[in-house]
This record gives sequence, structure tokens and C-alpha cells, in this order.
Amino acid sequence: MSQNSIIASRVGRIALAMGCPAGIAPELTARVLANEAILRSASFTVFGDRRVLEAGAKAAGVTPRVSWRSSEDESEPVPGEAVFIDLGHLDPSTIPTGVSSVGAGQFAIENFRRAIARACEGKAEVVAWTPFNKATMRLAHPSYKDETVFTAEMLGFEGAASEFNILPNLWSARVTSHVPISGVASLITFENVMRGLRLTHSAMSESGYQAPRIAIAALNPHAGDGGNFGREEIDVLEPVILAARTEGIVCDGPYPSDTVFVRARKGEFDGVLTMYHDQGQIAMKLIGFEEGVTLLGGFPFALITPAHGSAYDIAGKGIAHPGATFNAMEIAARMAAARLAK
Amino acid sequence: MSQNSIIASRVGRIALAMGCPAGIAPELTARVLANEAILRSASFTVFGDRRVLEAGAKAAGVTPRVSWRSSEDESEPVPGEAVFIDLGHLDPSTIPTGVSSVGAGQFAIENFRRAIARACEGKAEVVAWTPFNKATMRLAHPSYKDETVFTAEMLGFEGAASEFNILPNLWSARVTSHVPISGVASLITFENVMRGLRLTHSAMSESGYQAPRIAIAALNPHAGDGGNFGREEIDVLEPVILAARTEGIVCDGPYPSDTVFVRARKGEFDGVLTMYHDQGQIAMKLIGFEEGVTLLGGFPFALITPAHGSAYDIAGKGIAHPGATFNAMEIAARMAAARLAK
Repeated sequence: MSQNSIIASRVGRIALAMGCPAGIAPELTARVLANEAILRSASFTVFGDRRVLEAGAKAAGVTPRVSWRSSEDESEPVPGEAVFIDLGHLDPSTIPTGVSSVGAGQFAIENFRRAIARACEGKAEVVAWTPFNKATMRLAHPSYKDETVFTAEMLGFEGAASEFNILPNLWSARVTSHVPISGVASLITFENVMRGLRLTHSAMSESGYQAPRIAIAALNPHAGDGGNFGREEIDVLEPVILAARTEGIVCDGPYPSDTVFVRARKGEFDGVLTMYHDQGQIAMKLIGFEEGVTLLGGFPFALITPAHGSAYDIAGKGIAHPGATFNAMEIAARMAAARLAK
Repeated sequence: MSQNSIIASRVGRIALAMGCPAGIAPELTARVLANEAILRSASFTVFGDRRVLEAGAKAAGVTPRVSWRSSEDESEPVPGEAVFIDLGHLDPSTIPTGVSSVGAGQFAIENFRRAIARACEGKAEVVAWTPFNKATMRLAHPSYKDETVFTAEMLGFEGAASEFNILPNLWSARVTSHVPISGVASLITFENVMRGLRLTHSAMSESGYQAPRIAIAALNPHAGDGGNFGREEIDVLEPVILAARTEGIVCDGPYPSDTVFVRARKGEFDGVLTMYHDQGQIAMKLIGFEEGVTLLGGFPFALITPAHGSAYDIAGKGIAHPGATFNAMEIAARMAAARLAK
């Protein structure tokens, strides 16, 4: 695997939305925009307010390398420098830090909307953002559910989107997500698992893996123990694996989910396709939540953000760890370049 | 009165069965029986064959402190020395190492049966064993399912048994175990969760916790998100928690299962009651499988063993890590003493 080789040719384009201004997003955005390696890995167009960014830069003690604009134009960004679209929509002194407010929610929603719009226009291959706070976004936009639904509604998109959780050397995807445990098993169908597996394979390939090794987690304890407690492994998962291999997908399983992540952590697999939300999230959060990245795949463009939240408790102090945000930008840059090269 | 006799008058009694002779059980048993601190913490009666133990002692390079007997008698064991009942039923040179055989299975089954019988007679508070190999036991005893079923059948026991997984500072128990995911939700009833919580509280109390802090894991992702994806948290788990507190059980939740173990690992809780097998096992195996202990609670006596298996791949080499086995014996000793004092 050579994840870095893709970057050499031509950089892709990332539309970056500043996240919740009441949380750690301003300082994390400032750190990204002060990081020369990241700024050279892709062409960044950032949506936010100059005053919010400058407050974040002050908190973090860094100097962003940006070219300020008041609107989007056709000029090419200079390598190593981001274009910052100053929407002039929030004076940070008018909102409280570390607390939800309508103004904070409106700011984040508008940045996100603009970044998505830019990708829809074909001017960015990836939409990225620093952490949102969902409760705050709901204050400003009561029907806001999550980034997947918001994006799908904005696009009129009716396909299948899928969330990936990414640690430095381990991807996790899931076939079902926000459904009750009582409803999981009936959704473990050939079509659903196959779609999740194909999405995982393609997203990992675009991020730089040559032939990602994907483990399929079993649905049932002990992988059903040969059918003694559940037959989905035999009736669904084994046929999926055989079919996927004929498409060139490197995959194996179904493996008992209580050991598949122990094996993955040792390096046996690059990714794990899980059957339900907590099956993967229990493991990923124990292995290394602080460095984790979330990717939404299946849309016409990729959506990428650090996995952690807006951390109201430490907002404005300049102490937020930027590791996950930097990882998110690295993956975003690789995927943007890969998509541009298609 | 000497210090030793004071201790001796308080220690409980453990019936220890040697596990699979084709695996690492002989060397682990020898290491236990060469450990003076463990031998002083309880009164041990061991079931096995002297030749198998001596082979294990040779592999491990230790000298067991045992008093050999050919049958159980009424003599009191000397503090710091185990009584070894030599059943004379296996010459280890007649079975292959690291491979299943009928002879190996018969040996382990008979030791287990004798240890259970001793506890049934009121001569031991705890039954412990070094690792069995289930496939090997099935060769000798085709209907063998697991230790819980074997014990229940031997006792004619029809109550509810419960398996606990124990790391040095963290217990995990579960309301359901070997059932398919499709069948889990219907078993999350007030009665079942309450019974699991009471068993967890009492087992932890017997092992030495004064007021164990037990977290209840939610069944559904994000703890059901206020009823949006699943109502078991609202309809079952919250009422259980309120009821349990009136009984003096220190418990809280329901907490989303993808963060409850992160919090438990930091020390916020002493134990987590999970709703299904993999919810706890994914976490426990990632946190520290090698040191883990399995406890079967709910029977008239406690059953305790290291959580790992018989490790055929490293059998006879003297390199098996005894940490989990030593932890198992420490917990067994505490529970035996607590039960004896009742």
C-alpha cells in the first residue's frame, strides 16, 4: 500500500466549512490553514467568517495562510495557501463560547450549505468540515437530523449513503446504522451487505489503498456457531463474500465480531464491514477515538470530518488536539485527488 | 494463635479441576500450585493425574507444593499446600500434545465432574479449572455444550445462571448470551435485566467490592436517541435502574454502549451490564483479553476459570502466560472466603 503516491500528480479540491463557532472548530480550522503540508496536498476553499477564524487563530497561536475573498470567483488558488470566502455572517463576540445559540447554529449551517453547493457545481471533489454541534444546528434549523440527511435533502439524492469511521490504519463501515437492535437482522440482506461492501471497497480504494483487505463481521455471537444461534452468516454473508470476490474485492469472513477488531488492530485487515452501529463503534472508540475520522460515502462527492464533537468544555482555550482534523484533511486530500483523476 | 492459623480459619475452599491435558492446562495448573501466595489464599483440592501435573511442572520449570492423595479424605490441608487427588486416569505419553483426542477429553470431563461433585457435597465454595478445549470434550462426551449446561445438568439445576467476564478492574455481565441478534430485543424484559443486575451486584460484592458501581449499557445505538430508534431504554432499562436503586444497588444508565466501556476503562464504573454477547465481548477482548477471567454465577457455588482457551499452538512449551489463571484464582479465593463467611 502506498497511500501517498496519489498526491504526486495533481491536487484535488476541498470545500471546507467552518464548524460550530461556539466549540473548538475555529481553532481547529485555523490550525489546518496554518499547516503548509496540508495546504499543499489539496486546493482548499473555506467558508466562514474572517472574525471567527481570527479568533480561532489567536486561541491556537497560529497564523493561517489564506487569501481572503468576499465571494467565490474563478481565480486559481496559490499552492500552499487557502482561499477563504468571508461570508461576514457572524461576529464571534455576539455569541457565547461553549453554549448553544441560534447564531452559532446559523453560522455552521450556512457554511455547510455553501460548501455542499460548491461541490454540487463541480468545483470540489470533497466537502470537509470542522466539528458541528447537532443540538446547536437544530436550534437554527429544527429539522436538522444529521449531515447525511441534510446533504441528501439538499441534493434531492435518493441513493444509499454510508458512514465510514477511519482510524490511521483501520476503516470501519456498517450495513445498518440508526435502527433499533430489534430491526437489525431483517436488514441484513444480500443487497444491503453487498452495497455496503462495494462502497467500502471503492471508498478505501479512492483513499489510496491498492487492494484493501476487508473483513466481514458476523451478525450473531460466535458467528452464529454454525447456525445454532442465527443463520445470517450462512444464508447471507457467505454468499456475499463469494460474489464480491468475483468482482475483485479482497474480503473474508464472516468473523466473530468480538475478535475481528483484535485481529484488525494487529494489522490483519485494513477495514471491517460491521452489521450494526455499536458493533463497530464500541471497537473504534476503544481503539482510538481521538484520532478518528468520519467519511460519508455514496454521494456524488465525499464528505469528511473528524469523528469527535465540538467539545464545548474546552472551546476557545487552544488546547484541542488537532490529530483527527489533520487525519481528516489528509484523507480528504487523497480522495479529492483520486476523484479528480477519474 | 499464629498468623497462619488465623488466615487458615478464614480461607475458603476451592475445588480445582485440571483442564485439557493436550493444551496449556498442565503447565498453568503447575504454576498455580507452585505459587505460595495463591496457595495461602484458599484451601485447594485439585483433581487430575500426578503424571500430567508433573509433565506440566517440568514444562513450566516449577515445583508444585502438593500433598498427593489417591482419594478424597477428611484430612485438613496444610496452609500453603494443596491436596492433589491423583485419579490415575491418564498417562500423558498416551495422548498427543496440541491435538484433540478422546483420552484428553475424558480426563478433563472427569476432573470437572469430580470438582463439581465436591462442591455439591458442601466441601468447596468455588469450582475452578484451567482451560478446557470444548471440541476435545465433545469427542469424549458428544452432548457436551459448555460448562454452564454441563453443571446445570449434573445438578438438575433449573435456575438462571449468568456468565461474567472479568478484567483486573472491570467486570462485564450480559442479559442475553448465545442467542441470535434477531432474538435479543424480545428478551430485554424487566425481569431478565433485573435478574442480571442483581446477580452482577451480588457476585461483585462477594468478590470484594463494597458497593460496586454498575453501568447499564443501552440496547440501541445512541441509547435509542430518546425513543427514535428503539424504546427499550425508556420502557425497560430506566425502570430497572430505579427499582434496583431501592434495593441498594449502585447503578446508572442506560449509557450508549459505544462509550460506556471507554468510560469504564477510565475507572468511572466497576462493572458494565450489557444486553447481548458481543456488546460486552468486543470491548473486553480489546481492553485486555489476556488477563481476563470468566465466572459463572447463579449456581449454588461459583465457577471460575481464565477466559482464554487451551492454546494448543503453544502447549507444552512452558511459555503460556499465567496472568489470567492467577487472576482467576485470586477472585476464586475471595469469593470462596466470602461464601464461607455467610
